[in-house]
Amino acid sequence: MMVEEIVMKIKFDQLVETFEEILKSRGVKEETAHIAALNFARTSADGVYSHGVNRFPRVIEYLDKGVIDGNAEPECVFAAGALERWDGHMGLGNVNAAKAMDRACDLAKIHGIGIVAIGNTNHWMRGGDYGWQAAGRGCIGICWTNTTPNMPAWGGLEPKIGNNPLILSVPVSDGNHVVVDMAMSQFAYGKIELARMKGEMLPVPGGWDTDGNITKDPAEIEKTHRVLPVGYWKGSGLSIVLDLVAAVLSGKNSVTDIGRKYEEEVGLSQVLIAIDPEAAGTREDTDRIVKNVVDDIKASTPEKEGGSIFYPGEIEIRTRKDHMENGIPVLEEVWEKIQNLKK
Amino acid sequence: MMVEEIVMKIKFDQLVETFEEILKSRGVKEETAHIAALNFARTSADGVYSHGVNRFPRVIEYLDKGVIDGNAEPECVFAAGALERWDGHMGLGNVNAAKAMDRACDLAKIHGIGIVAIGNTNHWMRGGDYGWQAAGRGCIGICWTNTTPNMPAWGGLEPKIGNNPLILSVPVSDGNHVVVDMAMSQFAYGKIELARMKGEMLPVPGGWDTDGNITKDPAEIEKTHRVLPVGYWKGSGLSIVLDLVAAVLSGKNSVTDIGRKYEEEVGLSQVLIAIDPEAAGTREDTDRIVKNVVDDIKASTPEKEGGSIFYPGEIEIRTRKDHMENGIPVLEEVWEKIQNLKK
Repeated sequence: MMVEEIVMKIKFDQLVETFEEILKSRGVKEETAHIAALNFARTSADGVYSHGVNRFPRVIEYLDKGVIDGNAEPECVFAAGALERWDGHMGLGNVNAAKAMDRACDLAKIHGIGIVAIGNTNHWMRGGDYGWQAAGRGCIGICWTNTTPNMPAWGGLEPKIGNNPLILSVPVSDGNHVVVDMAMSQFAYGKIELARMKGEMLPVPGGWDTDGNITKDPAEIEKTHRVLPVGYWKGSGLSIVLDLVAAVLSGKNSVTDIGRKYEEEVGLSQVLIAIDPEAAGTREDTDRIVKNVVDDIKASTPEKEGGSIFYPGEIEIRTRKDHMENGIPVLEEVWEKIQNLKK
Repeated sequence: MMVEEIVMKIKFDQLVETFEEILKSRGVKEETAHIAALNFARTSADGVYSHGVNRFPRVIEYLDKGVIDGNAEPECVFAAGALERWDGHMGLGNVNAAKAMDRACDLAKIHGIGIVAIGNTNHWMRGGDYGWQAAGRGCIGICWTNTTPNMPAWGGLEPKIGNNPLILSVPVSDGNHVVVDMAMSQFAYGKIELARMKGEMLPVPGGWDTDGNITKDPAEIEKTHRVLPVGYWKGSGLSIVLDLVAAVLSGKNSVTDIGRKYEEEVGLSQVLIAIDPEAAGTREDTDRIVKNVVDDIKASTPEKEGGSIFYPGEIEIRTRKDHMENGIPVLEEVWEKIQNLKK
């Protein structure tokens, strides 16, 4: 990022087609390739480049190495009413998660609430996508994943816990859903790297320095690999319990297991919950309730003159609108790399 | 807290009897008084004095003023499979929440997962209690409440959002469950007050000072009433969506509504979810999975020599054991106040 970067604008459909073609060239069947391609394209369309276009080459690398099985189908291995336990058979994580959330929504339409716990799955890319998906089906979505150990537990030195992203979404009938998507670390490693490359400090403390002090210096944090949980001891505790719920309900890997078993971040456990406000008899009130809250929050006096207060998901909605009209920014270097993945 | 305090040790059963007697003297019927009394006593037994013994007089004040209806029975107003919507009829918040979580567990035993959304209810005291309750029934518990507006949304000045405590619990067969109970503010106002009285700084930043800077100084935060969300923008976003889900599913008050309608923190909305690992077919694996994770976390090298790494709920378990054997510490001043509530 110290060199000048050339940014291209690629149309959404072209991104999808390119991803599909490359996935199919690795033997991934059409339907699976389409679901995966849409997920990568939507993620960049929403401005989360790290888990969209920029991440695509690594997933192809994992397919080529065989640590992801591009033709695995997720399978329901245990069903009891509104709860299902699935085995992801080490397939494409974003496809598995999309299918699991779709099934959770089906279950919610029947039982009011539905839950799918999936084990032996892989990185789901941007977790927020499954929140938007549930909301798109008129459901409240709640989902989380575990990860490789990448953060110390509060009071400890070694990375023992995951940053385990948690997503909650609330549907609004015009499609402008409210979606929060938060990892349990204050900053992603990618954000820390970017700040270091730009020679900037982080806006708030993000980890520990080599003297054991909490710091905003990204270069120091990269040396210690000790990133800070959101809310210090609080995010550490939440991370641990999210992991336990995912591991217990899937019957598969905890963060601890993932760290011990695999070189790469694979074999993850996830929980996908959908709740249907229709079943609560409150579907008709939802838009009014959301609008009332959102309007009030946005009417806050800004801390900084001329500042704006955003509700969760609002920035993604604006970014998406712009990108769907004007194309999605892709680094020329990344786009070339992707072209070279074609067979 | 600047004067010397005299601490008494009261036995758990004596606390329960005292609370019951006082509640019954306000016309609260026996069963309701018993559930409420147990909740207050358990909360102090676990070391959360602020929402146990110390909070009891305020609840009696609210009963006497009529803002809490001691004889209201929570009512299921809409049921659809695994989801129920309840009206708390402005009854005792801890009794309503205990009954709602109990029902969520019943639903989980039938459907694998169960959810009760309750509106028109009151402060549930310590939210963790409902996590312990679900775990005591062999279920994973997930629950949260909204609150009065007590925190600014990220980027804003006025308190517009709630600190909306979120609880998750995982059952372990020996009763040493894993429970995380976290408000969306970094510190409770009570903790900030205590630090100011002791003349101490907070251990990490807790809010804003009068110059608009983030600070550890409790006296400054008390002046601005601007407390910091956990993880800055992240906790702000999570707080907003937790509130929306509770308001939408209960069809009742959001944080915004509570702030506009009431002088006191009443008329709250809550969500109580239970999930039965038995329904996932993983009940037998739960203890092993939890032990594996907990052992690994506790084996971290402590940041400070001689330090310990605790898992969520561990400190409560230790405190409870000590207090059940040796009595629960109660300030003499508070105990006298409580005796004076007897009629």
